[in-house]
Amino acid sequence: MLAEIITIGDEILIGQIVDTNSAWMAQQLNAIGIRIKQISSVSDNKQHILTALREARERADIILITGGLGPTKDDITKTTIAEYFNVGMVQNEEALANVASIFAKYNRPLLEVNIKQADVPANCEVIVNHNGTAPGMWFNVDGKIYVSMPGVPHEMMYMIEESVIPKLKATLKLPVISHKTILTVGEGESFLAEKIADIEDSLPAHIKLAYLPKLGSVRLRLSAYGENEETLQQEINLYAGEIIKRVGKSVVTDVDVPIEKAILDEMGASNLTLSVAESCTGGYIAHLFTQHPGSSKVFLGGAISYSYDLKESMLGVKNETLWHHGAVSEQTVIEMAEGALLNYKSDYAIAVTGIAGPDGGTDDKPVGTVWIAAANKNKTVARKFTFGKKRIQNIERTAITAMGMLINLLRENS
Amino acid sequence: MLAEIITIGDEILIGQIVDTNSAWMAQQLNAIGIRIKQISSVSDNKQHILTALREARERADIILITGGLGPTKDDITKTTIAEYFNVGMVQNEEALANVASIFAKYNRPLLEVNIKQADVPANCEVIVNHNGTAPGMWFNVDGKIYVSMPGVPHEMMYMIEESVIPKLKATLKLPVISHKTILTVGEGESFLAEKIADIEDSLPAHIKLAYLPKLGSVRLRLSAYGENEETLQQEINLYAGEIIKRVGKSVVTDVDVPIEKAILDEMGASNLTLSVAESCTGGYIAHLFTQHPGSSKVFLGGAISYSYDLKESMLGVKNETLWHHGAVSEQTVIEMAEGALLNYKSDYAIAVTGIAGPDGGTDDKPVGTVWIAAANKNKTVARKFTFGKKRIQNIERTAITAMGMLINLLRENS
Repeated sequence: MLAEIITIGDEILIGQIVDTNSAWMAQQLNAIGIRIKQISSVSDNKQHILTALREARERADIILITGGLGPTKDDITKTTIAEYFNVGMVQNEEALANVASIFAKYNRPLLEVNIKQADVPANCEVIVNHNGTAPGMWFNVDGKIYVSMPGVPHEMMYMIEESVIPKLKATLKLPVISHKTILTVGEGESFLAEKIADIEDSLPAHIKLAYLPKLGSVRLRLSAYGENEETLQQEINLYAGEIIKRVGKSVVTDVDVPIEKAILDEMGASNLTLSVAESCTGGYIAHLFTQHPGSSKVFLGGAISYSYDLKESMLGVKNETLWHHGAVSEQTVIEMAEGALLNYKSDYAIAVTGIAGPDGGTDDKPVGTVWIAAANKNKTVARKFTFGKKRIQNIERTAITAMGMLINLLRENS
Repeated sequence: MLAEIITIGDEILIGQIVDTNSAWMAQQLNAIGIRIKQISSVSDNKQHILTALREARERADIILITGGLGPTKDDITKTTIAEYFNVGMVQNEEALANVASIFAKYNRPLLEVNIKQADVPANCEVIVNHNGTAPGMWFNVDGKIYVSMPGVPHEMMYMIEESVIPKLKATLKLPVISHKTILTVGEGESFLAEKIADIEDSLPAHIKLAYLPKLGSVRLRLSAYGENEETLQQEINLYAGEIIKRVGKSVVTDVDVPIEKAILDEMGASNLTLSVAESCTGGYIAHLFTQHPGSSKVFLGGAISYSYDLKESMLGVKNETLWHHGAVSEQTVIEMAEGALLNYKSDYAIAVTGIAGPDGGTDDKPVGTVWIAAANKNKTVARKFTFGKKRIQNIERTAITAMGMLINLLRENS
């Protein structure tokens, strides 16, 4: 079963917002055995939307549309869909009651533009929006399903989870796809590919292997297409096992989770705690951990010590260390990590200090110079890295590298 | 001048990665007057890529392709493009020298798969990849420009900035687009639309207004299309001025920057400093500030105090406050903010404590309950919010709301 996602909105095409909706929707659909054939982002333009709908119905059985449902004049999705189906617009009672109740709740006057939000194409089934005023719409026409939803992420997400997925399952006979992802750190894509070339060659036609590199890590994803979930999983586990054995200690986990989640799970299982001392990453490492539910079991907190003063007062880095060796030095990062262990009473700590850029570099310590330490009560490991000139990438690369060092230290002790 | 972006890779279509490349590329192209007509994400499948190329050339003059250039078997973009142009593959000397030098630098053996990375379609002009092994490719065929680049973000970005933009400027006569964006916080999209309806109605045909809502904030974007940059900017500034006057104190800035950057700029201009005390946002607020170059002028650092212990030891929250009122309370958030001011010696501080979810709620304090405080030496403002049940959204909404409170406090004092 194939689907296409059409996202509507000039804000995507001028790059003002990143389309995170599509990836999320793709994950949800894949999980129920619907493959996304294409994702198309088009402008708030009637002809363009009509063309996109016509192209999509040639490729896919299910067409998910987001965006362009707001109350303002640039939002033309609804009337364009009505034109596409050659139907008129009608006011929907349930949608109007929803709009009215939201405005009543916040004690705001119900404006003409808001009442118009309850108008929908005559041939649709309304999906009530429990998080906003724009109704979702479900169409089943000529054997194709069309679903139009708001582009506001949490409104769309709630509709997908609560209404669209259950309706799709009830309406369609769905096939099965199984994925298995192996997360590796520290080796490049081509090195891994060479190492497992014969395993890849031996894969049957219905199993595909993909390499997904991202700063400092590579994911190896096996995907199997078929009818029986149990058989597919058995097959895919067999090949995954071979790959894991071959790749060895670069493997972080064979569960499809981000690296920080793998750390939380591994440390949580052993009742270990973690704190951080972040300079150049400025809270990013802590944010990666704390975005995950339940992270508080492992992650206690930490210091963001951008200034010299805070490195001293929060982490106990010695004044003479800072002035003698500088904030970006082996001595400082070691004192930061050990200060975090001591002050925050955690079993493990990560510390980073560096020059994220684009300014602040010297001949001696160019932009991209980063010191990272991982520590437990028995051992502190510190390493120097030289990343690139781009700030955001340096922050991300520092975070993933620090996590790699933490994993190595954890494994030494397990 | 119209462009289409084609991103190739199953990893996008199964939602394993979010396509951040397209938004970035769209921004770069818009800045030089090239409009993106469509963004299409397609699978690593020959027929699908060929169809996407054919559809794109009907819509656009410039076709930017990313992804599928790695050394592994699932990367078929290069050979598919050769088939599309009906040409053979040739080894490119410059690309081979680049691959060889990278492997020499890291002291790795040059494998057969890596040598193959220097093979390109016979009709292309190679764009050397200074950050990786896969060469970029520039084609100028039948009046259309095609550029194929790696999907790895920093490799693609460097190519766009260093090679593609200069080549496009040299090759094409480009029109002009001007944008102006007004960032507002605290009012909904439809309320704003009603407030400025007559201004919107008075806009000439070549100027468009778009509403871009995002948790807690709405951007109003004016876009003008024409030939003369100076005239367009004058026109657009006139309308922007009217809108700003009408919308009033909800306006944060009329520069197209994120809210935290507007704060950094405003505080930096007055030599004010900031620290944070984050519980439920777990480093996210600090990360938002510190991702911006030069943030260290304003942002000193702060505490991520997930546990009770760290709220006491890092911020001086009184033990009796925690046990009497709980970690998520007005008293605690006030002590956190004032503790940050005192301990980190900043002019302003933000503190947040809440239940991000999905677990940890009680009848009294359900998931989504958040206390936020903004403080300076004269005043501490604390407010309670009840957000939704979703962790990531609660974290984001808490961050933007805290920034809104900080802005209000800053404005009171200016």
